[in-house]
Amino acid sequence: MKLHTKTMSSYLDQIRWNEDGLVPVITQDASSGRVLTQAWINREALQTTVSEGRAVYWSRSRAKLWRKGEESGMVQKLVEVLLDCDNDSVCYRVEQLGGIACHTGRESCFYKKLSNESWEITDPVLITPDQLYKNG
Amino acid sequence: MKLHTKTMSSYLDQIRWNEDGLVPVITQDASSGRVLTQAWINREALQTTVSEGRAVYWSRSRAKLWRKGEESGMVQKLVEVLLDCDNDSVCYRVEQLGGIACHTGRESCFYKKLSNESWEITDPVLITPDQLYKNG
Repeated sequence: MKLHTKTMSSYLDQIRWNEDGLVPVITQDASSGRVLTQAWINREALQTTVSEGRAVYWSRSRAKLWRKGEESGMVQKLVEVLLDCDNDSVCYRVEQLGGIACHTGRESCFYKKLSNESWEITDPVLITPDQLYKNG
Repeated sequence: MKLHTKTMSSYLDQIRWNEDGLVPVITQDASSGRVLTQAWINREALQTTVSEGRAVYWSRSRAKLWRKGEESGMVQKLVEVLLDCDNDSVCYRVEQLGGIACHTGRESCFYKKLSNESWEITDPVLITPDQLYKNG
């Protein structure tokens, strides 16, 4: 039983969590390759992501687990989890249900591009935040 | 002259740098879409990236600017810079010269995949670190 517990948690122990118990996570659309979001996870968030098969983050502002899509319905179905060479950064590859990752109603959170030293918006709003969170 | 300086730096002022003056940056291969690296930047690193047209980071361990490829030759040529909705995460889209982003001699730093609760190596070493840094 002890061995079983050890085996179950070892992939979490190999991650170099920072002083707050967090590492950054990059979320990428597994089909298009588009980077959707950068967020943060702790041990519990990663474990829950793996067990529930959906992207779960640690909300630093609300100081609680954040199951992506719990209010908007825009769930990120987990395809795979990657870890980097230094063991201090994770990448979630996901299927983005509803096609909208950003709370502004856009496909990706990375919708600003540097152009002539200013940030230019590249993406349309596909659904207004009011519509997105109407059942929230 | 004052106005000119203000204009030059405004895209940097819009970023919400953390208490250490840093934000995380995701580096993505602009052709393949593969996530190559997650690192950190400060104002100077981003400004240098833009002015030199190559990915420059802030090395937290060495506490200095790190021009990617300065030792290995594996320069990341800048294609575009993206900013997220919260203004606290940046994405560099790059052309990876030499096809190797990772100091282990692999294409990407994200070469470990979670499989049955353990990290499985997915990528071959294309060039040994000894070869990679022989002129370092």
